[in-house]
Amino acid sequence: GPMAIFGASNFPIAYSVAGGDTASALAAGSTVILKAHNAHPGASEIQARAIRQAVQDSGLPEGVFSMVRGSGNAIGEALVDHPLIKAVTFTGSEQGGMALYRRAQQRPEPIPVFAEMTSVNPTFILPRALAERGAPIGDGFVERMLVNVGQACLKPAILVAVEGTGFAALRHAMSKRVSEAPARTMLTPGIHGAYLKGLCNMESAGASLVAVGATATAEVDGRSALFEVEGERFLAEPLLAQEVFGPSALLVKVRDEEELLQVARSFKGQLSATLHLEQDDLPLTRRLLPPLERRTGRIVVNAFAHPQEVCFATVHGGPFPATTDSRFTSVGMTSIERFLRPVAYQGFPDALLPEPLREGNPLGLPRLVDGQ
Amino acid sequence: GPMAIFGASNFPIAYSVAGGDTASALAAGSTVILKAHNAHPGASEIQARAIRQAVQDSGLPEGVFSMVRGSGNAIGEALVDHPLIKAVTFTGSEQGGMALYRRAQQRPEPIPVFAEMTSVNPTFILPRALAERGAPIGDGFVERMLVNVGQACLKPAILVAVEGTGFAALRHAMSKRVSEAPARTMLTPGIHGAYLKGLCNMESAGASLVAVGATATAEVDGRSALFEVEGERFLAEPLLAQEVFGPSALLVKVRDEEELLQVARSFKGQLSATLHLEQDDLPLTRRLLPPLERRTGRIVVNAFAHPQEVCFATVHGGPFPATTDSRFTSVGMTSIERFLRPVAYQGFPDALLPEPLREGNPLGLPRLVDGQ
Repeated sequence: GPMAIFGASNFPIAYSVAGGDTASALAAGSTVILKAHNAHPGASEIQARAIRQAVQDSGLPEGVFSMVRGSGNAIGEALVDHPLIKAVTFTGSEQGGMALYRRAQQRPEPIPVFAEMTSVNPTFILPRALAERGAPIGDGFVERMLVNVGQACLKPAILVAVEGTGFAALRHAMSKRVSEAPARTMLTPGIHGAYLKGLCNMESAGASLVAVGATATAEVDGRSALFEVEGERFLAEPLLAQEVFGPSALLVKVRDEEELLQVARSFKGQLSATLHLEQDDLPLTRRLLPPLERRTGRIVVNAFAHPQEVCFATVHGGPFPATTDSRFTSVGMTSIERFLRPVAYQGFPDALLPEPLREGNPLGLPRLVDGQ
Repeated sequence: GPMAIFGASNFPIAYSVAGGDTASALAAGSTVILKAHNAHPGASEIQARAIRQAVQDSGLPEGVFSMVRGSGNAIGEALVDHPLIKAVTFTGSEQGGMALYRRAQQRPEPIPVFAEMTSVNPTFILPRALAERGAPIGDGFVERMLVNVGQACLKPAILVAVEGTGFAALRHAMSKRVSEAPARTMLTPGIHGAYLKGLCNMESAGASLVAVGATATAEVDGRSALFEVEGERFLAEPLLAQEVFGPSALLVKVRDEEELLQVARSFKGQLSATLHLEQDDLPLTRRLLPPLERRTGRIVVNAFAHPQEVCFATVHGGPFPATTDSRFTSVGMTSIERFLRPVAYQGFPDALLPEPLREGNPLGLPRLVDGQ
């Protein structure tokens, strides 16, 4: 049936009009009604025209793709409420995602809502890795944190490290890199305003400012920032674990291995978590993995980049509140599963079966037969 | 995480304490808290003891399975509300299923609710099949309708046939079989009461009584009943398409092929649909399949029985209101997917990976590598 797809603010191509949600919904045989994000009306229009042209060229029915645009909530609400809509995808704020999710539940017929909403993507530096590579890890972390002016689902926002050898080098590398970063244009004035508010919240929740980037020159420029807090304070103040959408990060200094584990257990659902470790860190890592496996969709070892290669193994999802449905991914080959449901054909004459299921397998597809 | 599983009233084994929901949740590594159905406290207790014994014998943690019991809604509500519960399964009435579903949506953290609620499992007799096999089809339909005193998810409740050759034979065979059927004990006094109310609703919605079975001798005996209605009336009165849980059926007499298609399009989501057809019926069947594929989880050709063999191809689900989530089945090998979510491991040293993912595949499992 028809799917309502909400384009994201931050990736005008990959998560927008012609993005993975649209592609996987169309591939599943669904009709797409796309709500364009107001942050990039021009890019949206160009993509929509290209898709409409492709629909025409390939002889598909004209209504298979359409795009709607406009500010405010009225359009989105009308889409989610419409009885013909069979599923909703959304990428954006927790507030926005939960509003759509709750609204969809008011329908007489419930439908799935796949909202990708919030994640601080915690990074853990294990003691041996900190001792050996504190500075390069801090440097690489901030580099990744600044990508897209910090406006990415997978931005690493929180770094957890045990106080000890290498900690000063880590902190110094991070401070240096943050303070050298130029202020850069953020996506919209609204997102810029929310970022400033997020920075204020950090301070009032008890984190201390370690470094700031160059002064902003334009009104919507995002100035990067690094905060620091002790593990004990972090555990006591849930506000510190909330996402700040923009070029800021929080360094959490924990007392010992036990506090590191406590901090790991304190996180809500995340899209990803990253570990920096050496061979000697394996025993502690084995204790750290179970809480992380329960709380994240992806765990990365000894890397900074989060390339979202679209393959069978890609997982871009995670436990609530990272997403509203952790069993599915919005990126990767299996994202199509959000829009499929099984139909069983029993006792059918071969001529009535859909071609992929016929005895001779006329389309030559790889098939699962008796579970093999 | 822990799953709340609600046992069904009608299958004290397959859908109850040790049923498929419990088995697939345990297989997925989840803890099960089972709410036993009040219809069979004894059978529930025997099964629970056997499971607890098995848990002990196999050295699993003691809390991996527990059972709660009691009438009223308080226990069920407490289970669905509990923040540790990660999913809910339910088999029963639409009212009960939707109450749990709506309640789960009030939680701060949304969780999936798999409720299998209602289905009239329509049967369509195509003209040539009716002309050739009207009587045996009617006979076989009623035989199946009476199984378990009509208290089955897959009970065929509505039969649609075009007026013409074979219709009188079909109607006669059904009447004869229904009137010969003895009244048999229903599951609970409550279900019996709801059945009687359902029969009254049929009549007041405009269906006429064609035949009734033998008089009931005990208070909770279900007396079988056959109703009939013209296609036009059926299309005008949605109440006639509602499930009556018990040994009754409705014969819908349609004017022509077009009205047969209209009736097919009028149905809400169903667990199954059945077609009786001959070679000459293929052209009409091809027109009938698309609306049925959209509305059902399973389509059966030229059969009466609905064996629920537990295999990879089993689908026991269907579009709302048959279930709250048509992408999943509650019976079959894939029912485990309701309780699984993906976790991606990126850049891991082999020693840290779970055994099934290690380089040498030490457990020797069949695996999907690069989509192959």
